[in-house]
Formats: sequence, C-alpha cells, structure tokens
Amino acid sequence: MSNDKPTILVTNDDGITSPGIAALVHAVRTLGNVVVVAPDSPQSAMGHAITVAKPLRLDEIKLFKDIPCYQTSGTPADCIKLAVAKVLHKKPDLVVSGINHGSNSSISVIYSGTMSAAVEASIEGIPSIGFSLIEYSHQADMEASGKVARQISKMVLENGLPQGTSLNVNIPYVKFDEMKGIRICRQAHAKYEEEFDERKDPHGRKYYWMVGNFLNLDHGDDTDEWALAHNFISVVPVQYDMTAHHAISILNSWNLNV
Amino acid sequence: MSNDKPTILVTNDDGITSPGIAALVHAVRTLGNVVVVAPDSPQSAMGHAITVAKPLRLDEIKLFKDIPCYQTSGTPADCIKLAVAKVLHKKPDLVVSGINHGSNSSISVIYSGTMSAAVEASIEGIPSIGFSLIEYSHQADMEASGKVARQISKMVLENGLPQGTSLNVNIPYVKFDEMKGIRICRQAHAKYEEEFDERKDPHGRKYYWMVGNFLNLDHGDDTDEWALAHNFISVVPVQYDMTAHHAISILNSWNLNV
Repeated sequence: MSNDKPTILVTNDDGITSPGIAALVHAVRTLGNVVVVAPDSPQSAMGHAITVAKPLRLDEIKLFKDIPCYQTSGTPADCIKLAVAKVLHKKPDLVVSGINHGSNSSISVIYSGTMSAAVEASIEGIPSIGFSLIEYSHQADMEASGKVARQISKMVLENGLPQGTSLNVNIPYVKFDEMKGIRICRQAHAKYEEEFDERKDPHGRKYYWMVGNFLNLDHGDDTDEWALAHNFISVVPVQYDMTAHHAISILNSWNLNV
Repeated sequence: MSNDKPTILVTNDDGITSPGIAALVHAVRTLGNVVVVAPDSPQSAMGHAITVAKPLRLDEIKLFKDIPCYQTSGTPADCIKLAVAKVLHKKPDLVVSGINHGSNSSISVIYSGTMSAAVEASIEGIPSIGFSLIEYSHQADMEASGKVARQISKMVLENGLPQGTSLNVNIPYVKFDEMKGIRICRQAHAKYEEEFDERKDPHGRKYYWMVGNFLNLDHGDDTDEWALAHNFISVVPVQYDMTAHHAISILNSWNLNV
C-alpha cells in the first residue's frame, strides 16, 4: 500500500458476503487504501456486543480484487478491535460500516450492529460512519446509496469529526435525483412495540418469534425520522457518553443516604 | 399476588443461576411482588443485542421460594420484552438488573448486558436500575451490595426517575460501613485497550482470546471512576438518546450537498 493515501477500514453487521459491503467497498475504494474486516455471518441486532467468553477466529479470504479481506467469528465491535490490533497494526483514518440492509434510524441505533462498529471506532478516536439503506431486501439497488456513502466519507476524511462522535447515516430508498439532500438530525424519540408470535416445535415445546412494530413518538421536524419521511438523507452524530447529564441535578435533590 | 404492592421484575446478564441474581431477589423481595425473568446462560458483554433471527424459549423454573421464575434463551434486553409481553402482561413498576459480578462503570455501560436490560426498560418507560459489584468472583460476598440495592430500589420506587433514564449503579467491594455513601456521577471518559492472546487449536489453526485493559482517561472528580476509587457507590443516570447534540451545529457548518 502507498503511504500517502488514507487507510479506510470497511466492516458491517450483515456479514462479509452481503451485497451491502460490496457496495460500500465499491463506493470508497478510490478514496484510500481499503481493508475489509467483517463478521463471517450475519450479526444484525447485536447491539454493542463483544466476545470475551469464547475465542475469536480471523481469516484472510479472497473476495474483492486488490482489497485485503478478513472474516472474523466476532461481532461488529470485535471487528474494529481485531482490525486495529491484528490486521492493520495501527488505527485507520476512517471506519465505514454497512451499507446495512434496513434502517438504523432513531432508537434502532442502540440495537444496531452496524452502528456498534462505528461507535467502537469512535471510542478508539477513529472517525467513523455507519450507513444504512431504508430497504431490507438483499436485492436492493445500492447505486444511489453508494454515491451518498462515497460523498459523506469524503467529507469526513476532509473535515474529521468532533471528538467522541460517529455518524449514523440513513438513506431513503429512492433514486439519487429524488433525494432532497442531507439533514443533520437528532435521534427521534421512538420505540419498538414487540409482539411475540407463539409456535410449537415438532416436539410440542413452545417457542416465540419476536416481531417489532416501529412506533415514532416524536413530532419534531429536526429528527432522523422526519428527514427520511421527506426523502432526505439523515445524519445523526452519535456519542458513546450515555450519561443523562440533565438528570444529575434531579437525582442530587434526593436524600442519598444508605 | 396482591395488587397494592409494586411489581418488581428482576433480571441479569450472568444467567439465572448466578449468585448475583439470588442476592438481588433477596434484597428487593419485601419491597413488592417480585418476578424473575433472566437468561438461561451467561450473557456478559452482550451489549444491547436482541434476538430477531432465531426463536426464543421461555420456561418457568423453580428457583426461589414464592417467587415466580422464568428462564429465556434470549439476551437481557429480550428478557424485558418477553417479561412484559408474555409473563407479566403489563409493565412492572420497577426493573432491577444484576447484581452483576464485575464493574459496569464508565465505558463498560455500552458493552454491558446488565445495563442493556435496564436501558431497554427505560425505553419502555419503566423505572430501572442496573447493579454491579466491583468484584468478578462468583464467590463474592454480596451482603453489603444487596443492602445498597435494596435502598436504591426503594428510593426509585418512591421517587420515580426522570423520563428516558435508568440508573447505572456500581458498588465498591468493601464492607458496608466502609462505604462513603452515594455519589451521582457522570460516565468517566475511559476505554479498553485490547490485547489478543494468540493461540493454536489442536488442529493447528490460530485463534485469539480478547483481553481488555481498562484505561481511565478522565481526571474529573465527578465521574463514576473517581467515586468508586474513593469507596463511594457510583450512580450514573443513563439515557438511550445517543445523539451528540453539541455536534449538530458543527456538522451544519459543512457544505452538505451530495
């Protein structure tokens, strides 16, 4: 690799063979020296899981021409740790994660493997972006979202990111010229209302499938949900400081003796 | 169950047979009608993972006298969803998670299964607390931490919590009368520096064990790390809004055309 170009680490949570990672590699490959380190199997909804109670595998595979590719048995967050320590032997200049097949807007950020890789990178001080397309099909056309990923990656390489933040980018599934532009947003206040589909296995034992119905509780026009509903690309800066700073003074009004 | 007492859901991430959950059940059992729904196996470092790609099991087991107990094949966050939908058929008045064997202070909150259960409850609008003891041994004496858990649970039942917040409570491993009291804190700026112990399996294939070394980068005396180092119980209010609000104006100064 030449040393004057930035090093770009590509990962995802749908697994290294998913079309989304190929689209992302294609989108950023001329922006720097690209290396792929991604899970060997789908890791959706893994949240910020890491692997401490079992060993990890890391194997080089041939997947994209002229792009070093490694698959791991770990989670998306593990991929960042393994890539820095055992593949790159340094921090990359940028981590891009995705393109996820399906939304990671609003509350989904907290369940998202795609974003956990980006957040892990930001903990390491590496500028990072998670890209998600608002379409779950693995047959989705990723040409427009690839263009968006390339453009935002370029902006982040040029400008950096505020310390301790990563970007959660969600992209509407419309043609490129139907997109209204980029909106910097806050995470909408939303949740999933779960239903559990109850079934019996062939041995007569009960089991459940979780089905989540998304519920947007937020009427603001500065949210990612608003932006996406209006065909904007939503960009939410995400931090790993989970402190509810506004609640500290409230709790300090309690009588705190034990 | 009588209807005048609050319903308290107990869960954890070390698994339903861990000593920590027994200590927590013991601590809160006279504060309300206690129900246990917890993972059937250890789920440490699971972050906010949920189970969408495979079915879930949920089975009643006999574990604590007069306390209904259910084990699930899911993650700590799944336990909350399953408990509300399929066990309690309503939201409990309080969720307590733990007592975790080991710290979940500062950055660990993001990897913590214990706290993911509490955060999931807060998304559901349920007051919730994660308790962790700063001692990893499963033989740890949990008498003092049980007292603390009881006292803080009582305070939250009486006062509620600010909307969208849960409490991350870490307890130093000292005798009860050596504890200096409770400090409301912010999450310390800290990270893990990973090392990967490289080994070969009996078939000659490489594998890695992740070993994290905790690195506190924060010199503030208002952090959970400071509190714990000085034998205080640290209480961090935690929110699920991960938006880095301060970064929005910075990003809006960019030229955002795609």
